[in-house]
Amino acid sequence: MIGVVREVYEKYGFEPLETPAFENIETLLGKYGDEGNKLIFKILKRGEHAHTGEADLALRYDLTVPLARVVAQYQNDLPRFFKRYQIQPVWRADRPARGRFREFYQCDIDGLGTTSVLVEVEILSAVSEVLGRLGFEAFDVRLNHRELLTGLLTAAGIPSAMHEDALVAIDKLDKIGADGVRAELIQRGIAERCAAECLALFGADFPAALRRRLEGDERAVYAIDQLQTIADLAADTAAGGHVRVDPSLARGLSYYTGAIMEIAVPDLAGSLGGGGRYDKLVGMFLGRDVPACGFSLGLERILVVMAERNMFPAQIARGSVDVMVTVWSHDTRRESLALAAALRDGGLRADVYPEADKLGKQFKYASARHVPFVAILGDDERARGEVALKDLRTGDQVAVARAEAARFVTDRLEPRTQNPNEP
Amino acid sequence: MIGVVREVYEKYGFEPLETPAFENIETLLGKYGDEGNKLIFKILKRGEHAHTGEADLALRYDLTVPLARVVAQYQNDLPRFFKRYQIQPVWRADRPARGRFREFYQCDIDGLGTTSVLVEVEILSAVSEVLGRLGFEAFDVRLNHRELLTGLLTAAGIPSAMHEDALVAIDKLDKIGADGVRAELIQRGIAERCAAECLALFGADFPAALRRRLEGDERAVYAIDQLQTIADLAADTAAGGHVRVDPSLARGLSYYTGAIMEIAVPDLAGSLGGGGRYDKLVGMFLGRDVPACGFSLGLERILVVMAERNMFPAQIARGSVDVMVTVWSHDTRRESLALAAALRDGGLRADVYPEADKLGKQFKYASARHVPFVAILGDDERARGEVALKDLRTGDQVAVARAEAARFVTDRLEPRTQNPNEP
Repeated sequence: MIGVVREVYEKYGFEPLETPAFENIETLLGKYGDEGNKLIFKILKRGEHAHTGEADLALRYDLTVPLARVVAQYQNDLPRFFKRYQIQPVWRADRPARGRFREFYQCDIDGLGTTSVLVEVEILSAVSEVLGRLGFEAFDVRLNHRELLTGLLTAAGIPSAMHEDALVAIDKLDKIGADGVRAELIQRGIAERCAAECLALFGADFPAALRRRLEGDERAVYAIDQLQTIADLAADTAAGGHVRVDPSLARGLSYYTGAIMEIAVPDLAGSLGGGGRYDKLVGMFLGRDVPACGFSLGLERILVVMAERNMFPAQIARGSVDVMVTVWSHDTRRESLALAAALRDGGLRADVYPEADKLGKQFKYASARHVPFVAILGDDERARGEVALKDLRTGDQVAVARAEAARFVTDRLEPRTQNPNEP
Repeated sequence: MIGVVREVYEKYGFEPLETPAFENIETLLGKYGDEGNKLIFKILKRGEHAHTGEADLALRYDLTVPLARVVAQYQNDLPRFFKRYQIQPVWRADRPARGRFREFYQCDIDGLGTTSVLVEVEILSAVSEVLGRLGFEAFDVRLNHRELLTGLLTAAGIPSAMHEDALVAIDKLDKIGADGVRAELIQRGIAERCAAECLALFGADFPAALRRRLEGDERAVYAIDQLQTIADLAADTAAGGHVRVDPSLARGLSYYTGAIMEIAVPDLAGSLGGGGRYDKLVGMFLGRDVPACGFSLGLERILVVMAERNMFPAQIARGSVDVMVTVWSHDTRRESLALAAALRDGGLRADVYPEADKLGKQFKYASARHVPFVAILGDDERARGEVALKDLRTGDQVAVARAEAARFVTDRLEPRTQNPNEP
């Protein structure tokens, strides 16, 4: 899967970047909201400070904040439009659960240096192409805009100090329905009238009804235009047919400033990935803003869905070894090693049984490990410069010249499924 | 480079394994000696314990101890002979220096479940093949045995409590010479007579003279036999011509019990990697021993040497983008995106300039980024269903049919060097 992601991202002109596992703790704190702060793994100070229990480093929580730090730090060495991809683990001190791990891989693409919506469109196209290549047909790309959210909440009469609270409730519209959201809004201290107005606004059709309701709010109208443009341009790309503007999409992270997006598949709680525009994050490190937009696919989430839906190619189940060379006796170990070397030179994955056990035991071991062929160098075979090759799938055994052995085995193997790490 | 390592390790029948970045702190403590203990990054306890400054997790310090923990934990699910490779970062709280990082990659192979020397031989062959494939011709595989070291120190009259101290000094024989080592031995509290005897013993020829001097020490003689067998069997493998038994090789880690090995290149302080047999480590977790032997290549060390010696293929310098699609005007963005999609479908890495800037500016940007081709969709080209392709290396510009564009560019590119991640 990583191979597919890497190949697609590179085809779109993104360059690979890796960052260290830990950052200075100040780099991470205050970027992910209160809940996020608590979930950051902190590393104890070393040396003479070890006894203070102080932390100076922290494990990365996502790939976006480290990228912003890198861009700020190496601003002068980077191209004006910097497009990078990054496939690395992140760590969150969450309670582990099904599909939720304390260490998991994110596969990110980000484009920096421009506010052009072509960045959003290319990113949506790239991640949609990844999912298509992995075999996903039905998936939704939900699209929204932070400024539209602000406009809607303001129009509903909700004071901006309560916007974040309101969004937590509205984000659950799919899960708990309009009545549930209304109840939660009220419980969070929002006036009944505002809660009702809020639901009416969030239920308005995109774009016509929304545009009417938000007339006069320049920023909200601009956000609607942006969303319209992104959806239009994306229609002709790999994201075509998947994109759906959804004003109730909130996305938790506090650093988003513009378009936000999320990919979900039917019948799965949660998303396969998400992203958005964050034009102010680099500025928190650099002192001046660098516009940016990115998307993050969650590797484990996607793997879980693929496993549940039997989306992996059948041949992945094939064992990792093509042929196991048996050891006839203590004195013939050298010949077994030489044969293994010849088989490997012929492109095969060859194992050597490590001990001069009874041959039956060696066969049994190979069979239990699903190795399709075993090679035997008995006295007769050695005398004739041959090797006996037994196909454990059929039981057939033939003696062939040593020089022919690799070819013989190769011709009788299923073609190996592309290694997920070989695009 | 990771692609080469992975391919060779898999050809030898090793299976991939990844382990989490952190382990329970008790798993790591006490496995690497006092110096190692201090260099372990410790993670602060979370939740209600956050204020105590206590650490419960720690970042992995090498790949061997986590492997031993995994083997102990999943003993019943693993084959009798378990061969795994692992390419992941490790962390050490060392002072960073040239070629020494706090985060670096190790590329490990290990074989577990047998005391057979075929494991040592296959491992030496595999790592030698990796180095050969990367272009290393002159490298030394130094080979020694912990039991031989013990025999030699005992024969020199050094009490076993001082063996570790003595080894630190002897390990420097290459660096500070016999007189230097003698001085350090004495300074570390070893009697002058013992120090002299020690140097004489460590200077004895392998195997004949050593065998004579250690006659009667069964374990030391067994170690000599083992070394002899490993060296003999390795002679016909990819390690052939490189292996040299060196009784002064010590290797710091405390978990080794048998053969120890290290690979060095001329004119480089330190090694490219090392390993050895550790038959007791799994037992520390499992309660019963599982014999094991492994080797670890240091990725960054190897990269530093390859960079200094210009060992990278020239084409690696080629930019990551094959063709950049320019944007003629705001209204033609959709066509630029469609062209990029077609070029990508044709196997190219295509970038789209994100803004409708002046064409000259777009060209300049592509040129600065070493992109060989730019694609232009001007009014004329669009009217004719063509695209103008400019070769920025030569300045030539031709108009071709859109459907021919990918082929046209591909035919004029240097073949891309194998991506290091595509074996």
